[in-house]
Amino acid sequence: MKSDNFSEWFNELLVDAKIMDVRYPIKGLYVWFPFGFTLRKLTYDMLRSLLDREHEETYFPLLIPENELLKESEHIKGFEEEVFWVTRGGSTELEVPLALRPTSETAIYPMFSIWIRSHADLPIRIYQIVNTFRYETKHTRPLIRLREITSFKEAHTAHTSWEEAKKQTEAAVALYKEFYDRLGIPYVVSRRPQWDRFPGANYTIAFDTLMPDGKSLQIGTIHHLSTNFAKTFDITYEDRSGNQQYVNQTCYGISERCIAAVISVHGDDKGLVLPPEVAPTQIVIIPIFTAQANSEAVLKACNELKHQLSRYRVVLDADDTRPGAKFYKWEKQGVPVRIEVGPRDISKRAVTLVRRDTGKKEVVERSKLQARVAEVMTEVLNTIAERAQAVLRSHIVAIETPEQAKGKKGFFQISWCGSESCGLQLQELSEADVLGEAEPIEGRCAVCKTPTNVRAFLARPY
Amino acid sequence: MKSDNFSEWFNELLVDAKIMDVRYPIKGLYVWFPFGFTLRKLTYDMLRSLLDREHEETYFPLLIPENELLKESEHIKGFEEEVFWVTRGGSTELEVPLALRPTSETAIYPMFSIWIRSHADLPIRIYQIVNTFRYETKHTRPLIRLREITSFKEAHTAHTSWEEAKKQTEAAVALYKEFYDRLGIPYVVSRRPQWDRFPGANYTIAFDTLMPDGKSLQIGTIHHLSTNFAKTFDITYEDRSGNQQYVNQTCYGISERCIAAVISVHGDDKGLVLPPEVAPTQIVIIPIFTAQANSEAVLKACNELKHQLSRYRVVLDADDTRPGAKFYKWEKQGVPVRIEVGPRDISKRAVTLVRRDTGKKEVVERSKLQARVAEVMTEVLNTIAERAQAVLRSHIVAIETPEQAKGKKGFFQISWCGSESCGLQLQELSEADVLGEAEPIEGRCAVCKTPTNVRAFLARPY
Repeated sequence: MKSDNFSEWFNELLVDAKIMDVRYPIKGLYVWFPFGFTLRKLTYDMLRSLLDREHEETYFPLLIPENELLKESEHIKGFEEEVFWVTRGGSTELEVPLALRPTSETAIYPMFSIWIRSHADLPIRIYQIVNTFRYETKHTRPLIRLREITSFKEAHTAHTSWEEAKKQTEAAVALYKEFYDRLGIPYVVSRRPQWDRFPGANYTIAFDTLMPDGKSLQIGTIHHLSTNFAKTFDITYEDRSGNQQYVNQTCYGISERCIAAVISVHGDDKGLVLPPEVAPTQIVIIPIFTAQANSEAVLKACNELKHQLSRYRVVLDADDTRPGAKFYKWEKQGVPVRIEVGPRDISKRAVTLVRRDTGKKEVVERSKLQARVAEVMTEVLNTIAERAQAVLRSHIVAIETPEQAKGKKGFFQISWCGSESCGLQLQELSEADVLGEAEPIEGRCAVCKTPTNVRAFLARPY
Repeated sequence: MKSDNFSEWFNELLVDAKIMDVRYPIKGLYVWFPFGFTLRKLTYDMLRSLLDREHEETYFPLLIPENELLKESEHIKGFEEEVFWVTRGGSTELEVPLALRPTSETAIYPMFSIWIRSHADLPIRIYQIVNTFRYETKHTRPLIRLREITSFKEAHTAHTSWEEAKKQTEAAVALYKEFYDRLGIPYVVSRRPQWDRFPGANYTIAFDTLMPDGKSLQIGTIHHLSTNFAKTFDITYEDRSGNQQYVNQTCYGISERCIAAVISVHGDDKGLVLPPEVAPTQIVIIPIFTAQANSEAVLKACNELKHQLSRYRVVLDADDTRPGAKFYKWEKQGVPVRIEVGPRDISKRAVTLVRRDTGKKEVVERSKLQARVAEVMTEVLNTIAERAQAVLRSHIVAIETPEQAKGKKGFFQISWCGSESCGLQLQELSEADVLGEAEPIEGRCAVCKTPTNVRAFLARPY
């Protein structure tokens, strides 16, 4: 059960619901089943449509020469133990080892240095959706901790000033909020403490959500890079006065952890519960044949409904399995709406509509079905979003001493002077991480007792 | 110019038309500019829609363990000098080197062995669109000969019998024909000689097109794998009588060479000429302001047209550059239809429509514009397809002796007994490759003089 043993529930559901096959013979690498791939496609198509409003999609090479990867010293310090290296081609040792991108700053920014000449070239806002690689030595998990991140959306922008770059980080926060709102995933947005920022960034803003086992899952990060990379990769522009200036940059990313969140946050003991917008099948129509039924009439009605609802992703499941087995199967796949059509429904010119989120049944007249389905799709999203939001809220707990967080589920708020030494102390005593700052309240730092209105968010992250 | 120096023309156009940046600091790796990426996206979306009729999209890992890659002995012989190897993670030497997939048979088929149990699981038809890698030691070229093939569509199928697999290869040929027909790219389809089949295949069918320099470009291959991989990877199913049988398999692929073909075959000295279905911009509207013009009225008319044509990808280019510079720019980008709107057009409630394929201008009444644009889009495709077809046909030449092909452009047909030794002899004497067989005609093998009705297709391939 999800509540008893989340990890087992998650691993079983990935296979049962045909999301991923975990039997690939390399640690940390998994296979997307067709159903899982469709869920991924719909989710990333939505993300893409949000980005396309003011970004352009591109593709940069996977392989990064060692010398480029090593250029930005802080950046490489953050990644050097996690990089996979290609050292051989055929039977030839390569002269320069090539890194599999752990992230693409060092692939993209040498090109920015060529592309950007003048203030008229700015801002640049691009993104790509690519596979990236981390040599994870910790325990790996499908969708969550991977050696091949198959679906990394990374955006990279360049601007004339620090302030413009800051505005871009705010626009990225708004974009990520919209993305997760449309998936019904609640989040805490906070600025990571400086010791936990992205290597090479000025500061990092992160989205975290709550997993059913009480841990936090980082599901998006946004970095203000200031001129750090611009100085390393010599990315300059001529300003209006004819002077050369370094660009200010941002980058921000979302990986397939967004899918992990959708599965984990909304799923239940029957299987997936999918937000309608990304559900591979949005409606399943199931004919109910009884001994007395005119099965031809039932099937005809089902086909008419399918046609009538064709603006949705709709499946008519008319094979000769018994209805119970079909319900079980489609519930597992998270289909938001099930429509049952039996002989009695036909005589009443109605259907039975069953919602996946609540399990509630209602009889709907066929003349009102279109309108009702549209409403239900919205209601399903709202219901699962509110339910998840309520769970998250109930797991945000204010504590007085860091020890109170030990072994507990959820997010904790605790007064903190803001210093790194007290922050690290908080982490050690709570056995949790400082994600960032919570809303301020007057108090005293739980470590050094200095008066402060800052509070830290603590959680045990994946 | 394209006709003088195709190679130079191609490389310049890739940069000028913003398809690819060739300045990435590793040999054989290139960057897709946003415009090029959109062309790629539209082309692959079309390919995807064709495949989705009876295939399912999936994703398998990039990395393949050495022992799996080495299992099929013929297969690895074909690839061993071309594989990139990951040997290090962080500072740790990996126990088992990992190959970057050169193609994914050895990643996918171990999973097929798990997935397939019974005849009821067959056929399986899946595909993925992924980056694959070849350690090319020859001269590399963007879109044509790459170390990272960024856009490899590979389909893999499994069937109960050799005959069913053969039918699948025929279905794949039909699918590829539709794909290339919709791009207006002419092709020769032939079965590769056995010495040139895919490593591990029973036989290989290939699509080749003619490049402007007279060489052939292989733009798609289809392989009947028989039970070769099934035996290596132990892929069996229980048949209706309860006996275990090996599956018969096929695989077939298309890479970004399809984009290379579109650019090379249709382009001219002004730039790209794109098939309307995949043109990132299908219509550009250009207001013509003259001294006497009421520029507000012109702009208003342009905006109305843009709205009226919104089912196309349409751009209104209303900035203050002079029209000539705009024409030049959009012609380079291959936009199929240009619409000019000046004061005189407004008074006549008409517009001037200019076709990219022929350069022809026509005046179209605004009330008839929608219908005319729809016609023109079809005509553009037909015109460029027929033009390309005519060029290909005129370059298929029957010859008597292999030496007649030496240093010449195009495809050559020559009588051949069909034996490998005479085939290799033909290749040596013509300095070209045997692509496959041409339509039969009675004759004598140009090498051994045996009577035969077989003719070989000869060409110099990329």
